[in-house]
Amino acid sequence: MNQQTIERIRKFTEERDWDQFHSASNLAKSIVIEAAELLECFQWSDTEYDLQHVKEELADVMVYCQNMLDKLGLDADEIINSKMDQNEAKYPAEQAKGSSAKYDAYLKK
Amino acid sequence: MNQQTIERIRKFTEERDWDQFHSASNLAKSIVIEAAELLECFQWSDTEYDLQHVKEELADVMVYCQNMLDKLGLDADEIINSKMDQNEAKYPAEQAKGSSAKYDAYLKK
Amino acid sequence: MNQQTIERIRKFTEERDWDQFHSASNLAKSIVIEAAELLECFQWSDTEYDLQHVKEELADVMVYCQNMLDKLGLDADEIINSKMDQNEAKYPAEQAKGSSAKYDAYLKK
Amino acid sequence: MNQQTIERIRKFTEERDWDQFHSASNLAKSIVIEAAELLECFQWSDTEYDLQHVKEELADVMVYCQNMLDKLGLDADEIINSKMDQNEAKYPAEQAKGSSAKYDAYLKK
Repeated sequence: MNQQTIERIRKFTEERDWDQFHSASNLAKSIVIEAAELLECFQWSDTEYDLQHVKEELADVMVYCQNMLDKLGLDADEIINSKMDQNEAKYPAEQAKGSSAKYDAYLKK
Repeated sequence: MNQQTIERIRKFTEERDWDQFHSASNLAKSIVIEAAELLECFQWSDTEYDLQHVKEELADVMVYCQNMLDKLGLDADEIINSKMDQNEAKYPAEQAKGSSAKYDAYLKK
Repeated sequence: MNQQTIERIRKFTEERDWDQFHSASNLAKSIVIEAAELLECFQWSDTEYDLQHVKEELADVMVYCQNMLDKLGLDADEIINSKMDQNEAKYPAEQAKGSSAKYDAYLKK
Repeated sequence: MNQQTIERIRKFTEERDWDQFHSASNLAKSIVIEAAELLECFQWSDTEYDLQHVKEELADVMVYCQNMLDKLGLDADEIINSKMDQNEAKYPAEQAKGSSAKYDAYLKK
């Protein structure tokens, strides 16, 4: 997401004075609610879906993620790179490569 | 998210040959699963939460969102700006401003 | 769920004095969190899953549903039969029968 | 849920020939989708909610849970009592009693 898009999201919230509803907890609820709407695109079929609908729901998830970053004063690149450090240490490429079984063992807790 | 972070996420998937598991449907499931783990940080309290844990779970949601963008060949800024066009038309600032009741009426379907 | 099982769930909460944490909102969060753990059993495969794990996660969802019924003083059969009245009116058997397209059109909003 | 309600749910599915869409995986998706709609009743407020809407969404979650029990040939009381055996062993009443901190430590993984 580029800076212009981020500013547009912030301005949207500010102009409506909606920051008051954006507690971290409410935003966490909102992210899961939108994520479930995204999943609904695939509820009865894994392969046939309405791409336009998928785009809209995915965008909703990402907008609420940005709202949460803003609420908590977090930087997307910083928290993602920290998590990727963990992921790379946890799933070494040579061991994890191409194996569904290993993928499963690694990714399922 | 900057280009370097995006490339790191892509390389992580490629090096492990995990693209084969990243159907749009599986990624939609993954996004909601991680979103629920984020919500778990707020399960019993809206105000007391482990910020480090929140950062990690929010990062997980965002990484899977990027995986889905990549899978479907989508651009984050494009889909978010299209959705913001819709949002701005749907919730005019002057009407929506600062009112919880209006916020509710607007945002709840 | 029979009465004995319902009583066991109630006693479990009472003996731990946990009713204080069971606001309707916290229980709604808990239901979606457990539902996502159930979905995790199917995250990377629709057909290969650990049945024992599925049983445990489905049980968790149902226990929290019972907790919510208790919290709000609701009766499972009453609310389900009311909803089934709506469903039967909304999806007449003769029209909905056996058609995936119709199923889709009916069930997707 | 009494036997009559269970039979009504089964008959509803049979008469529409919808069992073909009820894979365990699709039902897991459906449960989380409905659970998120239940959560949506509490998206912006923990205390003000539309009880009628809550009833309908909770009923939807429970109907899909019954669909999954039926699909996998499971008995609600059996899987719930097995899980309650685990819960009682894991959270001894005398230790867990009334403490939010303990509740947290116990319930959060």
